[in-house]
Amino acid sequence: MNIADTLFGRPLATEEEKAERIGPVKGIPIFGLDALSSAAYGPEAALTLLIPLGMAGAAYVWPITIGIVVLLGIVYVSYRQTISAYPQGGGSYTVASENLGEGAGLLAAAALMIDYVLTAAVGISAGVGALVSAVPALQSRTLLLCLAILFVIAIINLRGVQETGGVFLLPTYIFVGCLLTLIVVGLFKTIAAGGHPVPLIMPPKLTAVTGTVSAWLLLRTFSSGCTAMTGVEAVSNGVMAFREPTDKYAKMTLTIIIAILMLMLLGIAYLVPAYGIAATDPTQPGYQSVLSQLLAAVAGRGVFYWISIGAILIVLSLSANTAFADFPRLARAIAQNRYLPQAFVLRGRRLVYAQGIYALAILTGALLIIFRGITDRLIPLYAVGAFLAFTLSQAGMVMHWRRTGGEHAKHHIVLNGIGALATGLTTAVVLVTKFVEGAWITVLLIPAMILMMRGVRRHYTAVGHEINSADPVRTAGLREPILLLPIDRWSLVAEKALRYAWTLSKEIHVLHVAGAQTDELRALWPRVVEEPAEAAGLPTPKLVVLDSPYRFIVKPIVDYALELQAERTDRVITMLVPELVETHWYHYLLHNNRPEAIRALLLFNGNQRITVATIPYHLRA
Amino acid sequence: MNIADTLFGRPLATEEEKAERIGPVKGIPIFGLDALSSAAYGPEAALTLLIPLGMAGAAYVWPITIGIVVLLGIVYVSYRQTISAYPQGGGSYTVASENLGEGAGLLAAAALMIDYVLTAAVGISAGVGALVSAVPALQSRTLLLCLAILFVIAIINLRGVQETGGVFLLPTYIFVGCLLTLIVVGLFKTIAAGGHPVPLIMPPKLTAVTGTVSAWLLLRTFSSGCTAMTGVEAVSNGVMAFREPTDKYAKMTLTIIIAILMLMLLGIAYLVPAYGIAATDPTQPGYQSVLSQLLAAVAGRGVFYWISIGAILIVLSLSANTAFADFPRLARAIAQNRYLPQAFVLRGRRLVYAQGIYALAILTGALLIIFRGITDRLIPLYAVGAFLAFTLSQAGMVMHWRRTGGEHAKHHIVLNGIGALATGLTTAVVLVTKFVEGAWITVLLIPAMILMMRGVRRHYTAVGHEINSADPVRTAGLREPILLLPIDRWSLVAEKALRYAWTLSKEIHVLHVAGAQTDELRALWPRVVEEPAEAAGLPTPKLVVLDSPYRFIVKPIVDYALELQAERTDRVITMLVPELVETHWYHYLLHNNRPEAIRALLLFNGNQRITVATIPYHLRA
Repeated sequence: MNIADTLFGRPLATEEEKAERIGPVKGIPIFGLDALSSAAYGPEAALTLLIPLGMAGAAYVWPITIGIVVLLGIVYVSYRQTISAYPQGGGSYTVASENLGEGAGLLAAAALMIDYVLTAAVGISAGVGALVSAVPALQSRTLLLCLAILFVIAIINLRGVQETGGVFLLPTYIFVGCLLTLIVVGLFKTIAAGGHPVPLIMPPKLTAVTGTVSAWLLLRTFSSGCTAMTGVEAVSNGVMAFREPTDKYAKMTLTIIIAILMLMLLGIAYLVPAYGIAATDPTQPGYQSVLSQLLAAVAGRGVFYWISIGAILIVLSLSANTAFADFPRLARAIAQNRYLPQAFVLRGRRLVYAQGIYALAILTGALLIIFRGITDRLIPLYAVGAFLAFTLSQAGMVMHWRRTGGEHAKHHIVLNGIGALATGLTTAVVLVTKFVEGAWITVLLIPAMILMMRGVRRHYTAVGHEINSADPVRTAGLREPILLLPIDRWSLVAEKALRYAWTLSKEIHVLHVAGAQTDELRALWPRVVEEPAEAAGLPTPKLVVLDSPYRFIVKPIVDYALELQAERTDRVITMLVPELVETHWYHYLLHNNRPEAIRALLLFNGNQRITVATIPYHLRA
Repeated sequence: MNIADTLFGRPLATEEEKAERIGPVKGIPIFGLDALSSAAYGPEAALTLLIPLGMAGAAYVWPITIGIVVLLGIVYVSYRQTISAYPQGGGSYTVASENLGEGAGLLAAAALMIDYVLTAAVGISAGVGALVSAVPALQSRTLLLCLAILFVIAIINLRGVQETGGVFLLPTYIFVGCLLTLIVVGLFKTIAAGGHPVPLIMPPKLTAVTGTVSAWLLLRTFSSGCTAMTGVEAVSNGVMAFREPTDKYAKMTLTIIIAILMLMLLGIAYLVPAYGIAATDPTQPGYQSVLSQLLAAVAGRGVFYWISIGAILIVLSLSANTAFADFPRLARAIAQNRYLPQAFVLRGRRLVYAQGIYALAILTGALLIIFRGITDRLIPLYAVGAFLAFTLSQAGMVMHWRRTGGEHAKHHIVLNGIGALATGLTTAVVLVTKFVEGAWITVLLIPAMILMMRGVRRHYTAVGHEINSADPVRTAGLREPILLLPIDRWSLVAEKALRYAWTLSKEIHVLHVAGAQTDELRALWPRVVEEPAEAAGLPTPKLVVLDSPYRFIVKPIVDYALELQAERTDRVITMLVPELVETHWYHYLLHNNRPEAIRALLLFNGNQRITVATIPYHLRA
């Protein structure tokens, strides 16, 4: 297991679990990276839509950002309440299932799973996109870079939660530090200049006005800006990863994340018009991101600029890690209700839900390959899932307070009700404004996934009905099996199998397919088998030579077993397949794969009374 | 088997074999296509090297062609003698092995196998190259077209020899008919015009003289022209495919093939200078193949021209078929001496050596992919193998006549001796003139393949020594196995396995890895197993609960078996693995793959006294 140890670290015992729990310092990078990094693309996505308005667009930045921050506040309050109500970990899936029923739960589950895959894909592709803008020579390697980063993130996560926090700690705090410093310095300069600061480096000139303001445009702008809110639900899903008392540390972590995010969004929204900055068209030459313009305007292109840009690049591509921290926990919760394969419930060698990490890595890789690692193609699929989950979660919380009551129930119901309405409306806006560009894919995927999950559950239930039993074992009708032993010639391999067969049953049929070695076998048979058996008082095996006009080897043997089973319905038949075990895999190319073929064909064609045993013959060489 | 029947035809019984034997009419397309089609690229390859000499080059065409035709005649005589001496099929491999020893035989085998793969690859790529020159829009699809043609040829060959001849009959005879007509008409016109015929369509003007004649240039020209001789050995390898008397029909076929090839080479060599034609540079615009120029000059660009060009295209790409007819037979001959996996000896459902066809198709596909289906990159690897095989074959025939003597032994020895010298010299020339451009790859591959073949033989010998036996079966020390039965909980699956275990042995250990279901199992155990067993007088199985601090499931079970084996060295241990058999493959995603893992780990870690049996539980659903 040396390679596995090097890649994933030594196995951790179940008792070592507590040591893996985390506090806010590590919780912020692990569960907040996705939410925080969206400050780097949310405002940009909104401002891009205001480009046609020219300078007039600046007037709408502040009200739209206020709207997003208010929505963020509502969502924050809701998730704080969720953490209190579900200290064992209550993501949208748990809340919706418990309060709104199975259907709503599966809807939330499907929406969230899609959203996590998109979070991982968009995070990685945005990071690589930024890197590629800085180093255009890497353009042709976009997809390869995406997959390489995905691989590294998957490996880090397979090593376990504690080490994950360690890796992501530094870039996250540098990113937060840089952006907050930028905002404080910018604010100070703006106030000192009486609201009209002079940029150290002038932003690009505004393009000509080509459109007029409309409600639809503002809705689309708001909807694009809402991508800044994805990732906010991560903490509530991962409560169990925190130190005791889990809910206290989880809430603390959520509060810090939301507070920082709000400060960043408001700060950017205030400074951008003050410095006369607008988005530039990413499809045109001379494109420069809003954050890059703002950094240059406030601080110039010095050391601070490059550290900030570097931190943005790293944090964007690492934001995918939030999905890796949370998707496996979600999959586990769904699998515990038997809606996903049971493998998602088991923890791997490093106490992580390894199968969930594999699944997310494979799905993200597939998505990156399909969309060639280009962020713009992925974005329209995004956010629908997140807002659908927000809505279901808050609607679920409304039902939760109605059910449980309590001191402040009415207050809670009103708060969560407003939240549900606001996020529900946002879901509708996002869906409508992005439908044609790609949201339709999400709309098709969600029911498909619900059908799949229901199918999984149905299958487990059916299998359970068929095999469950608390009845005592039936002891009647036990009889030794008829043994079938296929051999191609007499050898030590055949001898070993025959000796084994004698220990099990008195009825043994040795099967041989007619061919070049038949005469020799017939000639040897009396001396090597019949006479010794008689002398030792053992039952003499029956030598059955099977004709094979079409030169098939496996088929006559399998057919013999099936025909015998049809005749002898009272008996169990066991096929004993001698198999050479080689020391090197490539030696298997030199032998036929008949043992495997016989096993597979009998298992699929056979019935309850045919059993297959492998008699290994280990070669020394 | 409906898909297989449609693709490959119904299975053929061994008795139907004779009906598949062929005569010269079908033998010429099957075994001669490679040799005949080389008339379309051999002269061209030689003339291309004479381009720098301008008009002066024409003077060397005739002597060089005479040299090639004489060499061809020598090789022909040698192979006629080989067919007589080896009516069971005697390619270079057989002749070299029997007369020059194992080393020479393997050298010939490696050379020939490489050559067949190259024949297939060059044939296909040259055909596609011609097609792409005619339809430049297909240029970007070169590799895909190559692989598609390879696939079709492989399928046709898997259907069997008889149908193969049918498919290739028409294009081959049209090709031969067109080229012979061209030569006869051209000859007639030349004679009628007193040696200076007027071209119907003037060939492109000759380029300026840029070089002078040298011995090295003429050697290279001869060496390139020799590619026209590849494929000549095919008939002697395939003697057994002919009707009785096989040697008579094989010789007849060989004679016709060589005669046509000589006529075509001589005819082209005579007409090309007479019509003032020279090769054009294939890397320059305005390139036109020599045959295309000649056809246009003699017959104009009418129907005859286009039929001929079409036949050349088809025959070139189908010439790969010769390799498919012969490679499997060669591989079989090598495998019969245990130098290749035994699978090459077996005939498939259609009486062809299917594994050889698969192997050739895979190797050819790999070569086409590596070299992107471009003929020019493949050509330098080519011909070394063929001439090495010719040389070994003829040197072998010299030894054959010395050994067997006979009436005309001296005469034969002289003829084959000259042949061996001539082809040996040609091998050296080809090797030296093409070494840097790619022949070095062949030079590296040949020893690698010889090492591989020796390794295969060594392994078979070692395994044989280890397992061969003509001794009677030992009947002492037989004792029933200790049975190990891993279960995760009590169910009908576990019950079935336990009932089966009771029929085999009195010592049964039921293994259970501690987990969520342990308490329930412990609680049920007395009522569902212990009490019924006691009541029926059956041995009570021992319930062993295995701890697993690292949450591994398979490892504790495998470790238990290995430890028990180490303690109880006098006993055989049998692991009975219950396995759910599903009706749909995708349902396996819902279950763990532990039965397979236990089986694999025990087979690889275990020793001679551990056996694994699968107890299938077939689900109805």
